[in-house]
Amino acid sequence: MNETIKLQHSHRSIRSYKAQPVSDEMLQAIIEAGHRAPSSMNAQEISAIVVRDVERKAKIAELAGGQAWIAQAPVFITLVADFNKTDMGVRKAEQMQVIHESMEGLIVAGIDAGLVLANMMVAARSLGLGIVPIGGIRRNPQALVDLLGLPPLTFPLVGLCIGHVEKDAPLKPRMEVSTFRHDEHYDASHYQAAIDSYDTTIMEYWNQLGRTDGLTWSQNLGNNLKHVYFPQVKPVAAMQGLLNDK
Amino acid sequence: MNETIKLQHSHRSIRSYKAQPVSDEMLQAIIEAGHRAPSSMNAQEISAIVVRDVERKAKIAELAGGQAWIAQAPVFITLVADFNKTDMGVRKAEQMQVIHESMEGLIVAGIDAGLVLANMMVAARSLGLGIVPIGGIRRNPQALVDLLGLPPLTFPLVGLCIGHVEKDAPLKPRMEVSTFRHDEHYDASHYQAAIDSYDTTIMEYWNQLGRTDGLTWSQNLGNNLKHVYFPQVKPVAAMQGLLNDK
Repeated sequence: MNETIKLQHSHRSIRSYKAQPVSDEMLQAIIEAGHRAPSSMNAQEISAIVVRDVERKAKIAELAGGQAWIAQAPVFITLVADFNKTDMGVRKAEQMQVIHESMEGLIVAGIDAGLVLANMMVAARSLGLGIVPIGGIRRNPQALVDLLGLPPLTFPLVGLCIGHVEKDAPLKPRMEVSTFRHDEHYDASHYQAAIDSYDTTIMEYWNQLGRTDGLTWSQNLGNNLKHVYFPQVKPVAAMQGLLNDK
Repeated sequence: MNETIKLQHSHRSIRSYKAQPVSDEMLQAIIEAGHRAPSSMNAQEISAIVVRDVERKAKIAELAGGQAWIAQAPVFITLVADFNKTDMGVRKAEQMQVIHESMEGLIVAGIDAGLVLANMMVAARSLGLGIVPIGGIRRNPQALVDLLGLPPLTFPLVGLCIGHVEKDAPLKPRMEVSTFRHDEHYDASHYQAAIDSYDTTIMEYWNQLGRTDGLTWSQNLGNNLKHVYFPQVKPVAAMQGLLNDK
């Protein structure tokens, strides 16, 4: 197995960072790894807002629901669906952009943001840095729009902490790979047994960490997926012009 | 610069594959790289359908709008938003799943699929294989749902060809990195100049390839983003129960 695949197979989220800054050279290499990710139609509709200012990071940490590692990590990057950028191209071609009002457009922005995010995470880890992706920036999207100066036709999708690792974290077990890989057609006949087994595995993992508040996978999803976890996403996206109606 | 970052900085899409199969060991390493990608809430809501059957690949190539490389590549993987899997956990916890009816749920599925996709692409390229991501599976989503046996609460998001490279491809130029990286806050003041410059660069690139049908970035987006590029996405997703209304 080569070094790249070893890195990927050992992915873990780091929530404890040293004060030591990330060098400009490292940050630029990480940014370029994200920038080289492919995008649907070569639209390049993802933009990355790099925040290193201490007060601004503290504010984002608070908006994300009190995630101290955002303030602690020296670099925080917000990936933005930037249909403002594509709109400038569409207008130059004397057309009217419609894709940002569609479910197709939203899926594309999500996938392309994920491609950028994964590339940046792997690049950072290949340099010995730690990372943790942050969905919590969608908790208060209007406040983030204001803080980052995001114009109409843009929306903050996901964030990433990057820094030198203070305290490493263990590998979190995944559900059996048979629930991820299907051959030739979808087959969920073994899902229930795999879920039961994973619920046991994840509790053992919490116990090993001494976490007494740990829940099973099923309990965790029951608590979190029974509602629209971040209910401000749709109304704020709509105010930004991403209507998602088509 | 290390090997991992070199790989990422040299990403290119391959559309010409040898008949030589991808070994089971390589495929498994690629699958595990995808499986180790993080997911929001640790929901692990992405599933990967591996297709190697010749007729099935030919059918997908046709459904995707006539993309011969899907039939030619020995492996084609479809990434699926699998809210059926999470629903089984939510039900086990005696709750009702709602997230799959929300824009937040769709963004999460898109991002998490992108994370899996990028990991699989980088893993495959680290093994010397070629790849091309395929959005065209969203052209006829109902036919793909039928072909892959996708149940309610699932939806095909994006595909990936993997194989040994027959004919390499050049690096495609990106727009200036200054249109991707913003510092502290969003700033589009240089976008128009960068778009004009990129429109020139991309035409030079087409000319170097001898492609007489090449368009500028702006013309390409004008043609493609002026409508809902894959209009069957929203209605078929709705039939699958992904309502996206909240």
